[in-house]
Amino acid sequence: MTVDSIIAPELEIPGDGAPLSVEDACAAAESAFEPYRNTTREARAAFVERIGQEIVAIGEPLIEAAMRESGLPRARLEGERGRTVSQLQMFADVVRRGEWLGLRHDPALPDRAPLPRPDLRLRMIPLGPVAVFGASNFPLAFSTAGGDTASALAAGCPVVVKGHPAHPDTGALVAGAIGRAVAASGLPEGVFQHVTGAGNEIGAALVQDPRITAVGFTGSRGGGLALLKLAQNRTVPIPVYAEMSSINPVVLMPAALAARADALGMAFVGSLTMGAGQFCTNPGLLLAIEGDGLDAFVAAAGAALSASAAAPMLTDGIHAAYEKGVATLAEQGDVALVARGLAGGTACGQAAFFSTDAATFLANEKLGHEVFGASAILVRCRDEVELADVLKATEGQLTATLHMDAADEPFAARLLPILERKAGRILANGWPTGVEVTHAMVHGGPYPATSDGRTTSVGSLAIDRFLRPVSYQNIAQGLLPADLRDDALAATPHLTDGKRG
Amino acid sequence: MTVDSIIAPELEIPGDGAPLSVEDACAAAESAFEPYRNTTREARAAFVERIGQEIVAIGEPLIEAAMRESGLPRARLEGERGRTVSQLQMFADVVRRGEWLGLRHDPALPDRAPLPRPDLRLRMIPLGPVAVFGASNFPLAFSTAGGDTASALAAGCPVVVKGHPAHPDTGALVAGAIGRAVAASGLPEGVFQHVTGAGNEIGAALVQDPRITAVGFTGSRGGGLALLKLAQNRTVPIPVYAEMSSINPVVLMPAALAARADALGMAFVGSLTMGAGQFCTNPGLLLAIEGDGLDAFVAAAGAALSASAAAPMLTDGIHAAYEKGVATLAEQGDVALVARGLAGGTACGQAAFFSTDAATFLANEKLGHEVFGASAILVRCRDEVELADVLKATEGQLTATLHMDAADEPFAARLLPILERKAGRILANGWPTGVEVTHAMVHGGPYPATSDGRTTSVGSLAIDRFLRPVSYQNIAQGLLPADLRDDALAATPHLTDGKRG
Repeated sequence: MTVDSIIAPELEIPGDGAPLSVEDACAAAESAFEPYRNTTREARAAFVERIGQEIVAIGEPLIEAAMRESGLPRARLEGERGRTVSQLQMFADVVRRGEWLGLRHDPALPDRAPLPRPDLRLRMIPLGPVAVFGASNFPLAFSTAGGDTASALAAGCPVVVKGHPAHPDTGALVAGAIGRAVAASGLPEGVFQHVTGAGNEIGAALVQDPRITAVGFTGSRGGGLALLKLAQNRTVPIPVYAEMSSINPVVLMPAALAARADALGMAFVGSLTMGAGQFCTNPGLLLAIEGDGLDAFVAAAGAALSASAAAPMLTDGIHAAYEKGVATLAEQGDVALVARGLAGGTACGQAAFFSTDAATFLANEKLGHEVFGASAILVRCRDEVELADVLKATEGQLTATLHMDAADEPFAARLLPILERKAGRILANGWPTGVEVTHAMVHGGPYPATSDGRTTSVGSLAIDRFLRPVSYQNIAQGLLPADLRDDALAATPHLTDGKRG
Repeated sequence: MTVDSIIAPELEIPGDGAPLSVEDACAAAESAFEPYRNTTREARAAFVERIGQEIVAIGEPLIEAAMRESGLPRARLEGERGRTVSQLQMFADVVRRGEWLGLRHDPALPDRAPLPRPDLRLRMIPLGPVAVFGASNFPLAFSTAGGDTASALAAGCPVVVKGHPAHPDTGALVAGAIGRAVAASGLPEGVFQHVTGAGNEIGAALVQDPRITAVGFTGSRGGGLALLKLAQNRTVPIPVYAEMSSINPVVLMPAALAARADALGMAFVGSLTMGAGQFCTNPGLLLAIEGDGLDAFVAAAGAALSASAAAPMLTDGIHAAYEKGVATLAEQGDVALVARGLAGGTACGQAAFFSTDAATFLANEKLGHEVFGASAILVRCRDEVELADVLKATEGQLTATLHMDAADEPFAARLLPILERKAGRILANGWPTGVEVTHAMVHGGPYPATSDGRTTSVGSLAIDRFLRPVSYQNIAQGLLPADLRDDALAATPHLTDGKRG
């Protein structure tokens, strides 16, 4: 079916009736779980694709609602819608291919001595209903139908989204689109539900409901840790995948600075100020060794930043927290303000760039805290050892970046083992703010970047978060789940006695 | 190298010097991590194999120590030694094959509009030093060089074992063997260390040490949950893989009972009393529908149990807890004692088999608690619905078993979805006490069978517990980890754009 052929029957923003209760949503999710997890791979993939088609079919009202509620510009939101749809398409492809099933078969050895070996087959099954808390900064790609929802639905888990209060109309429109995809696919309503309301009580009730089996969250460290604690204190604890905070260290290496300090300075400001700096992967920490190259970089970045326009931030609360964070940095001892961007209207973020030395940074943990928005601090290091020490002292991160030339490679090779232990993604000669939605992406990282550094929330590997293995021993073909019968094994990627067939 | 060619230089039990401190052990493990994780796959596999050879080379003193300390018979311990060695061999094979690296490559798309796509490569890397707490009931296969140690070492993680106080000499002998394998392989001493001592302080210090990145544990629910809480309350929380308790429901289905009640009764007693019932997968809960078949089963099982010899239990503490658990069951209302085994000497377990009805079981949660040792309770159900209700009410389990004939298949198909949500392994027409060490095995299960139902502690999938993904974006070939360079990718299982090459 092409997108154009879908007629969206209801484009007004839902919300007239009484809001769905957490109790009702969880009961419906639980009752939808068995039929949903038993859909064929093709049916589930087609459903996930259909969600994308229904989102596109909303058309202009979705973009307008998102612009109004987020302050983000049209081009960004149209791009984000495209990303949301292609993310759903990627998971549909993943569902069809079946690698996620992790199929394994150890055939029976009836003649083994002293005892025969039974037939053993393993598959991954979905955990059960999943609660999703979307992000404010990606009202489409990380919210109602974002990466957590897409990967959980792909895994076979019904989803209950706690609607983000910063973009209620956008959330309701997308929830309506998913609901139409559920209906068009002949699935039970409980496969996807959207609960809304102010305050933290609804979210807390959702995480504590015994029918919820996992939580996906993108937001602040405080919010993520609060949900984590609730989940750990349940009678039956459940996993929480919270993506929380990161300052994304960027190392400007000597040869790179010598070759292109000006260009790096301008590119840095572009990455720092994009989307008013409201990205989880915003480059908030720069590290470099003192020298002429670094001075030139600072001059170029300072000039570019001074000319950068203020941009509206997502909410008044985020703007207030940003201003408070910048003010806190400014008042720390031995921290210099390099430049600020142009001032703007109410709730507009005025970018900020600070500088300090390594000893000061190492002695003051406030300098390593995330300031959500366009704020960065440069740590000037005496030498390679000091720079490595600063990296070692940082908390877990989503990303770590090296700007390098060939002559920097030996130093980069010494830093790489440190970066591997600190971050989920390591990149060279780019900026961390672009996150590809692909198979080899990791958008995750050691605590406190996320609550579970063994996972990613972007890319196809995210599906693994909502699965667990079950082994079937000597189960007859007729009783075996369809995925594990001999004919399905032959047609699906699997290991036989640990070897790929 | 054959096992015979190894001469073990030191077969006395170590322990003369001052015991290794947690502080020193963790410092050495941390410093060993970089060199160890950078070994080639072949070098690491050969090291893991060498551990098995060194264990075999200890010879008779190891079996004698284990017999003396565990009370388990020679044949069982010789078998367990074989299992320990073959488990190490399996992980060596797994390391060589490289599936565990989870390699993924999304090649650059330089011409993509509006922006080029960078080159992205993903691999799994080891978490870091791992703390292992072995089990009392498998002094070899689940202890010092057991499944947790083998899988963590295979993943590239240095291991610090907290020696089990119930078998100190056995543990010291095995630790010595691992130490010789470390030395013979030219690895740093910190790759494997063994800390010992009475009380809980040493284990607590180990779990709280900031250099420890994950914990493997097999033991009681109380012990596992205590370690879990310590790990969650660290400045940087870490994963705990605790295998804790399970009563392993066994459903005796009507047609199977009609066909072979006597044989099932005798086989049940064999499984229940094996190893004095001291298995995590001991069948502690039977479920069946009232009828002549069930009466015949009870008669046969009762007769067999009454004639079963008492067997020495692992420790006085375990024996005391077992007697207390049996006494607690005996004093519950509407619970009948079907039979007890023969009485034996001090610290010998005298098997116990109880019976009750479904309503009583559902109303009294004490009846669903694990009694570690040869103790089981039969729940007599009126019909299929009541039996399903009892299964739904049980906690998470390691295993669930169906004894069935072809005529039972429709009923079994209705139970299977319940069992999949309750257990890590589902088996038909066998007994849960045999756990194969293979690739499709799951020895894990939903909480509280384990603290993390997404994992297994037996079988090759156990290696995944100690890994996390890292993505490398636009990293030059010379700087890329060897695993991810073009030539290595071509020689190792991997996904390209999500598809198997």
